[in-house]
Amino acid sequence: MKIIEGNITNPKGFSAAGIHCGLKKEKKDMAIIVSDALCSAAGCFTTNTVKAAPVLYDMENVRNPIKAVAINSGNANACTGEQGLSDAEETADTLAGMLGCGGRNVLVASTGVIGVNLPMDTLKKGVCSCFEVLGKDRESGENAAEAIMTTDTFAKKVCCEINVGGKTVTLAGMAKGSGMINPNMATMLCFITTDAAVSSEVLQKALSDAVIDSFNMISVDGDMSTNDTVLALANGMAENEEIKAGTEDYDKFFEALFYINKALAIKCAKDGEGATKLIEAHVYNAASKKDARLLARSIVSSNLFKAAIFGSDANWGRALCAMGYSGGKFQPMKVSLSFVSEKGSILVMDKGRPIVFDEDIAKKILSEDKIIVEADAADGNAEATAWGCDLTYDYVKINGDYRS
Amino acid sequence: MKIIEGNITNPKGFSAAGIHCGLKKEKKDMAIIVSDALCSAAGCFTTNTVKAAPVLYDMENVRNPIKAVAINSGNANACTGEQGLSDAEETADTLAGMLGCGGRNVLVASTGVIGVNLPMDTLKKGVCSCFEVLGKDRESGENAAEAIMTTDTFAKKVCCEINVGGKTVTLAGMAKGSGMINPNMATMLCFITTDAAVSSEVLQKALSDAVIDSFNMISVDGDMSTNDTVLALANGMAENEEIKAGTEDYDKFFEALFYINKALAIKCAKDGEGATKLIEAHVYNAASKKDARLLARSIVSSNLFKAAIFGSDANWGRALCAMGYSGGKFQPMKVSLSFVSEKGSILVMDKGRPIVFDEDIAKKILSEDKIIVEADAADGNAEATAWGCDLTYDYVKINGDYRS
Repeated sequence: MKIIEGNITNPKGFSAAGIHCGLKKEKKDMAIIVSDALCSAAGCFTTNTVKAAPVLYDMENVRNPIKAVAINSGNANACTGEQGLSDAEETADTLAGMLGCGGRNVLVASTGVIGVNLPMDTLKKGVCSCFEVLGKDRESGENAAEAIMTTDTFAKKVCCEINVGGKTVTLAGMAKGSGMINPNMATMLCFITTDAAVSSEVLQKALSDAVIDSFNMISVDGDMSTNDTVLALANGMAENEEIKAGTEDYDKFFEALFYINKALAIKCAKDGEGATKLIEAHVYNAASKKDARLLARSIVSSNLFKAAIFGSDANWGRALCAMGYSGGKFQPMKVSLSFVSEKGSILVMDKGRPIVFDEDIAKKILSEDKIIVEADAADGNAEATAWGCDLTYDYVKINGDYRS
Repeated sequence: MKIIEGNITNPKGFSAAGIHCGLKKEKKDMAIIVSDALCSAAGCFTTNTVKAAPVLYDMENVRNPIKAVAINSGNANACTGEQGLSDAEETADTLAGMLGCGGRNVLVASTGVIGVNLPMDTLKKGVCSCFEVLGKDRESGENAAEAIMTTDTFAKKVCCEINVGGKTVTLAGMAKGSGMINPNMATMLCFITTDAAVSSEVLQKALSDAVIDSFNMISVDGDMSTNDTVLALANGMAENEEIKAGTEDYDKFFEALFYINKALAIKCAKDGEGATKLIEAHVYNAASKKDARLLARSIVSSNLFKAAIFGSDANWGRALCAMGYSGGKFQPMKVSLSFVSEKGSILVMDKGRPIVFDEDIAKKILSEDKIIVEADAADGNAEATAWGCDLTYDYVKINGDYRS
């Protein structure tokens, strides 16, 4: 696998656009992704009972051959009743009309404020404007990545190449995260393009497996969104022999897809609303994979621990406490805990016993912008990693008055 | 039931003390409760896998006849290994020695920092100092309520009287809350005294039932503590005929006990770390009691919704979103939502459809210090209420550097 600078327009046959149409005051708020050839598609969606209209629409249509995706930011089209559903459909139909395909061959996604109906005139004009500037160049892909942002502070893109039977297959992705992010489909929106030849079924299996240890292992604020969506489109234009499940090619493809998901998930955690630090919780020697995941996710989800990391306070008891209410099995009297950063590492609990440690050294280690918590459960040989961010004044500020 | 001004020394035969012994810099940090007669006792404890030493000690001894409780703040004696367990036992033995009872007739509780062993010399001196100033007067009870506080901004006390077969039975309680508060034994510490004659079994049944819709329905930050404890002591000195399960007397006693629990739980929610507002979520017409509880708790637990309430922002979509990931069953298309405060009420969602409402009126309603969210699930006839608080800059400040 070769990691390259690039974005969703790198895989063959994909074009994109991102523009400002007026859903937001000034920033870009409308993007489209279009493939020259019809794609196999796969999707993973929020498990929230309250699913936004575009999520319901995509769940119904993701098994169809897919030509394009229309994405808006600034309005989530969530909690918008029957009107919301017909607005999602109309958005798809509008883009389909321009592309000359069926409405059911276009997927849609929205992010932004909940509970306000989409201003459809503005949105449809936005779809037209996107269509007019559609391009395969690097800038077009970057514009799209910018247009799906809400409170994100940087655009999230990643790209890689693999060799499948002598053919170069490219995968790329873009995501937006920031708030309302929690395990179980953590990003709000993520779009993956690839020119691999792969069926919708095999792509779905790979995507579903890839999100488990990537998007489902990040948390910003414990709020699972109504709109969480990861879509993958594969148009087969790399002309590789079709990737089948259970083959070496599949393993190679899965590794690349997992890399894309994980890299984007970590970017989402790092760019959590108001975040100043990325927190990585690594639990190892756990009794089972399930326990390891529960324990790791609980650490990065604890408000108290996140606030302590903001203050560079080595309050490790809060990490252990969070493990305790995670639902994951472990034996507190066996656990060892360390904090690790670029400035070094420090053991704070050794096999259930608190260690008297140098607070100044701990503070120095915790003052870095990436903090790793290492938890040795001494109870088996499973491991898992979760990512989150610190809880800051700015999180409260951003969310205290999001709509104005 | 008559609500009266009072505290844990109001029920006959109970004395208390609260002093500063040096676990904290200046504030009171050590309290004891003593009963003239041995008590029937009952307890509800954290379900966290990581249970503090005093919790483990009390779980083992709460069925014994209980004479007294020793409580310290400033150090939670949690994550303290084997040493922590023997420290809890030694604390009980110290007080027992002064009272001339067995160590197993004394319960203990601790709250404060996690992962640091108790300074036993300081603590034992504290127990002695408490014993010296033990009193049945109002001030002694108030000192005890102050001594169990950590980041609480006010002492939490409540008292009431009922008539059981011609005898006046008094119940009183004190609690400390603030941070690390979440459904499933939400308060960190709560102590209830009563002069009722009631067996330990019946008292346990009443207490277990009373916490379900009180302490288990509040949330401050989603972090379930290692130390959460509710203890009830009944010394029988009211000389009422023993209260048996399934009788009218039991119902009366339960109502009073529930009142004590609920009033203290709401005080804990209102005084959540950094809180400026009490949030009450009332879900009604739900399919079942279980669903109603899950839905209500999820609303008051959402970081995003709590931050919106801090900013007086009528972002009701976040409440609906929180209901969506609660695990409680409901039909989003049927739900109606209103915000209510002393300044009036405003409907924001009507049977699944967003309502265009006056933002200025909403802002005025949400600027009060008690905000009620009314959620009509239109799906049955069960209801539940949960309490929480807003998420503020001060929560982050308090928890970013708790230990210094």
